Amino acid sequence: MTDTQLDVRRDFVTAPYELVSRQHRPGRSTVTVGGVPFGPGTVTLVAGPCAVETPEQTLDAALMARTAGAAMLRGGAYKPRSSPYSFHGLGEDGLKILSEVRTETGLPFVTEVLDTRDVDLVASHADMLQIGTRNMQNFSLLRAAGATGLPVLLKRGMTATIEEWLLAAEYIAEQGNLNIVLCERGIRTFETATRNTLDISAVPVVQRLTHLPVIVDPSHSGGRRDLVFPLSRAAIAVGTDGLIVDLHPRPADALCDGPQALEPRDMAELAGMMREVPLLAGRLVAAGPDIEGSRR
Amino acid sequence: MTDTQLDVRRDFVTAPYELVSRQHRPGRSTVTVGGVPFGPGTVTLVAGPCAVETPEQTLDAALMARTAGAAMLRGGAYKPRSSPYSFHGLGEDGLKILSEVRTETGLPFVTEVLDTRDVDLVASHADMLQIGTRNMQNFSLLRAAGATGLPVLLKRGMTATIEEWLLAAEYIAEQGNLNIVLCERGIRTFETATRNTLDISAVPVVQRLTHLPVIVDPSHSGGRRDLVFPLSRAAIAVGTDGLIVDLHPRPADALCDGPQALEPRDMAELAGMMREVPLLAGRLVAAGPDIEGSRR
Amino acid sequence: MTDTQLDVRRDFVTAPYELVSRQHRPGRSTVTVGGVPFGPGTVTLVAGPCAVETPEQTLDAALMARTAGAAMLRGGAYKPRSSPYSFHGLGEDGLKILSEVRTETGLPFVTEVLDTRDVDLVASHADMLQIGTRNMQNFSLLRAAGATGLPVLLKRGMTATIEEWLLAAEYIAEQGNLNIVLCERGIRTFETATRNTLDISAVPVVQRLTHLPVIVDPSHSGGRRDLVFPLSRAAIAVGTDGLIVDLHPRPADALCDGPQALEPRDMAELAGMMREVPLLAGRLVAAGPDIEGSRR
Amino acid sequence: MTDTQLDVRRDFVTAPYELVSRQHRPGRSTVTVGGVPFGPGTVTLVAGPCAVETPEQTLDAALMARTAGAAMLRGGAYKPRSSPYSFHGLGEDGLKILSEVRTETGLPFVTEVLDTRDVDLVASHADMLQIGTRNMQNFSLLRAAGATGLPVLLKRGMTATIEEWLLAAEYIAEQGNLNIVLCERGIRTFETATRNTLDISAVPVVQRLTHLPVIVDPSHSGGRRDLVFPLSRAAIAVGTDGLIVDLHPRPADALCDGPQALEPRDMAELAGMMREVPLLAGRLVAAGPDIEGSRR
Repeated sequence: MTDTQLDVRRDFVTAPYELVSRQHRPGRSTVTVGGVPFGPGTVTLVAGPCAVETPEQTLDAALMARTAGAAMLRGGAYKPRSSPYSFHGLGEDGLKILSEVRTETGLPFVTEVLDTRDVDLVASHADMLQIGTRNMQNFSLLRAAGATGLPVLLKRGMTATIEEWLLAAEYIAEQGNLNIVLCERGIRTFETATRNTLDISAVPVVQRLTHLPVIVDPSHSGGRRDLVFPLSRAAIAVGTDGLIVDLHPRPADALCDGPQALEPRDMAELAGMMREVPLLAGRLVAAGPDIEGSRR
Repeated sequence: MTDTQLDVRRDFVTAPYELVSRQHRPGRSTVTVGGVPFGPGTVTLVAGPCAVETPEQTLDAALMARTAGAAMLRGGAYKPRSSPYSFHGLGEDGLKILSEVRTETGLPFVTEVLDTRDVDLVASHADMLQIGTRNMQNFSLLRAAGATGLPVLLKRGMTATIEEWLLAAEYIAEQGNLNIVLCERGIRTFETATRNTLDISAVPVVQRLTHLPVIVDPSHSGGRRDLVFPLSRAAIAVGTDGLIVDLHPRPADALCDGPQALEPRDMAELAGMMREVPLLAGRLVAAGPDIEGSRR
Repeated sequence: MTDTQLDVRRDFVTAPYELVSRQHRPGRSTVTVGGVPFGPGTVTLVAGPCAVETPEQTLDAALMARTAGAAMLRGGAYKPRSSPYSFHGLGEDGLKILSEVRTETGLPFVTEVLDTRDVDLVASHADMLQIGTRNMQNFSLLRAAGATGLPVLLKRGMTATIEEWLLAAEYIAEQGNLNIVLCERGIRTFETATRNTLDISAVPVVQRLTHLPVIVDPSHSGGRRDLVFPLSRAAIAVGTDGLIVDLHPRPADALCDGPQALEPRDMAELAGMMREVPLLAGRLVAAGPDIEGSRR
Repeated sequence: MTDTQLDVRRDFVTAPYELVSRQHRPGRSTVTVGGVPFGPGTVTLVAGPCAVETPEQTLDAALMARTAGAAMLRGGAYKPRSSPYSFHGLGEDGLKILSEVRTETGLPFVTEVLDTRDVDLVASHADMLQIGTRNMQNFSLLRAAGATGLPVLLKRGMTATIEEWLLAAEYIAEQGNLNIVLCERGIRTFETATRNTLDISAVPVVQRLTHLPVIVDPSHSGGRRDLVFPLSRAAIAVGTDGLIVDLHPRPADALCDGPQALEPRDMAELAGMMREVPLLAGRLVAAGPDIEGSRR
């Protein structure tokens, strides 16, 4: 008997990851996106709306984000939704809105790409490509994103093991692109009080296994506005390299994930929390962009 | 009490899916693929190698499958693999091999498509498109597959709820394509004695919620050759509309998932099990193709 | 890297099971309870109410069970309930009712024991002691039950691995008592359409690892009356050594788990299913008791 | 959308628990154990060996704990182990050792009770009774522990929902005993890089639902020494009311859970971390006992 005999899952990974491992690069890497660093010395705040809805809503959200200390904007132009009858994003129009808002606010942006056919278009606008949780093992998409050379934000599959997640990153790396930032966003468990279960341990575990930066998404992990600050503080204290947070000028009207979005009245608390980062983490908050304009 | 109140957590489904629901079609549908039915009166055996490796291996596997009572061939030309350094399939060459083997054996085939850019090519060869577990929520791919009008085999995501699975099917249906066969292939749990945990309950639950046929993959569920027959019998008894089984002429040399593939010496038992279907399930075994040749 | 490095859980089982293993007894054991066998040649039906409520309800349920082909009665006198404000069973009065019903119907009975202090009392009435899912790792209780020498029905913990389950059985065996019947009753997963997820693979996996018989509880697995027959058929086909099924003369009035209990009108179908056992499983239905009276 | 609709599956809780709810007591309670507070204004460090092995080892561990800022000692005299062949603790002798070490160090102690028959004995020695993860739904034990009137440390079942956990606490409360401290210690998921998955969200979720204090066990959550500090910092930042940490004078010789125990050389870092609590959490570290002697 018996452990080995029982654990058949273990037969199914034949090739480990290499380029993303600490064996390949003993130190920890810093990935720079539009001038904004993700790495061991900083905590980088990325914030913005779940979905780009209108130019006004996106600009308002970006200004909220900048006020609170965000160095970068997030926003979805292509939205993966469980139902075909939900809002799926503005597509290319959404990308244009994001580009305009970048010009106005100076914030570089990350946005999700869902389809290999859209990679070039999205890459022509965005500072960073996001691979979402549902596509973590969409290997064609990983390769296509990697091949652009742009930085990639790789969310953990909602039931991926850490090993599978790093192997997914290896697909991007194998294209010659090590500008990868990992994002823990909660895993699926039996617990129903939260949308997912934030696997906070994943941050230090991943940091021991890979040189890549790893950030935390407290919004999708909990799925509840009231958990965003506690989970963010936990992530900062555990050693995250950054946070990615949903916010919206009017969450009640949001077309996507309103219940987890921070509101305008939360921005003072968010800014206050970021000011505590040096105390909580012994790190600096990643510098936001120069207000004078875009970096592209 | 509260066990019921607590554990059966939501009273199931306000049918956010429509076209695939029993409300849309009260009866159960039969989907026909290259002359082979999937539906309420039959149990359909689909069998073949995990991956197409060579013309000989594929033909040998197809002949094994036909001998055992299979009505249809499975085989992967594009293989999703956790690692970028594993074998990823022969691509278009694999499709050609499958087409030739269809001509020789008369067996229509199903094969996986991974990338929206490949959908037309795969559809020009295959009788049925497979959407794999990792792509169950690759919504672009679902739509593109649906738009071909070809039958689609939709595997359950390894941690998808039944509701999410049916919503994924709705993406295909929304393209005007109701030729969808669902496939339960095991879900991810804490148990490590099996590769995944076959959710046998999903078969009757799904049959109450949708008119679409549902089949079971005992090979990927257990990940162990010794479990293929017990799980197949369970699936037949629970009311599955079909089985999809891995087999290989020489599993020890297989480039993918050898430990779960049936071998030549298992074919007599497989054929015997299929002969029991009328007793086990009160159904007929779906007729295999006419031996004289392909149906395309 | 890395599999070993990542899988720290594996360090935590230091001593495997011995007495319950196939190494200890190469063949499969038959456990006999009040004259009723559980073992490789038979399928044994155990049926009865979730909770003993009144003498009439218990007798009615026992007569239903006997009519349908049950060889043994189940019924709870001590009920573990998530809430302290739920009905917790009649205690000793319930045991007396069960004993009287045994005299009237000839059916031996299994009933759950929750507390080491109650073991002797329960053992003085019951033919078999049940250790429930919540107590699978209540090691004092396992030992105390084992020490009575009575047969023990050991339900799988709702999130126990198969290895932990067999180690729990080893606690009973270590007391010199190998009269152990294992019971798969569903595990906890993310799926919410069913109360638990029946791990049907556990039956053949366990039968390869241990000589002990294993039965299936389709009632608690699914938590839904409409799933009892499909899951029972699956269990019979997969090779279960028995079934344990909830039934109630009037489920709508049941004090516990009514939604999963079979009703009087289901008895003909249950009896019919049991008559199919030889065809489905190549086994006999375990003989019910002689109608003339109790065996104690 | 439906993500929210689907994933946050039930709108949480119609409070089937009462006495432990915020409806019963709107504020947050402080539970005092041997003079040591657990409550909203403090972070309380409980530390000690997994198991009491010898008087010397226990005293050494207690002195380590006190040095590092612990206000209370933990140590197991009765150990629940997956295997009957593992070390199960010294029993009453272990309790006596703990009592002597309390006299020498002034540290009150918490120790696990496994069997209703042992409750009075354990209660005659201990300052606080621990109900372990495997016994969270051992309702007899919950009641017996509650009836002693002693403070109770209630660990979350390794696959219990938060609602079930609070209902388990209600069993203790219903005995007239509200001196309950909850302990999150990791839940079981598919991830194998850690022993369990620390559900860090449980801390703020529980604090919204109940007035009881909640502490975190970083040692059993991760099962790895290298994760104890990161997870402790996360817990402090998320708002935990305390920590319970495994330590051992010589982990390599530990009879139980050595790989997760802190060592003597870790004490400076532990003490340093506790000194940061006011900055990390805006709380005081709970005062350790007066060094002059025991409080009993």
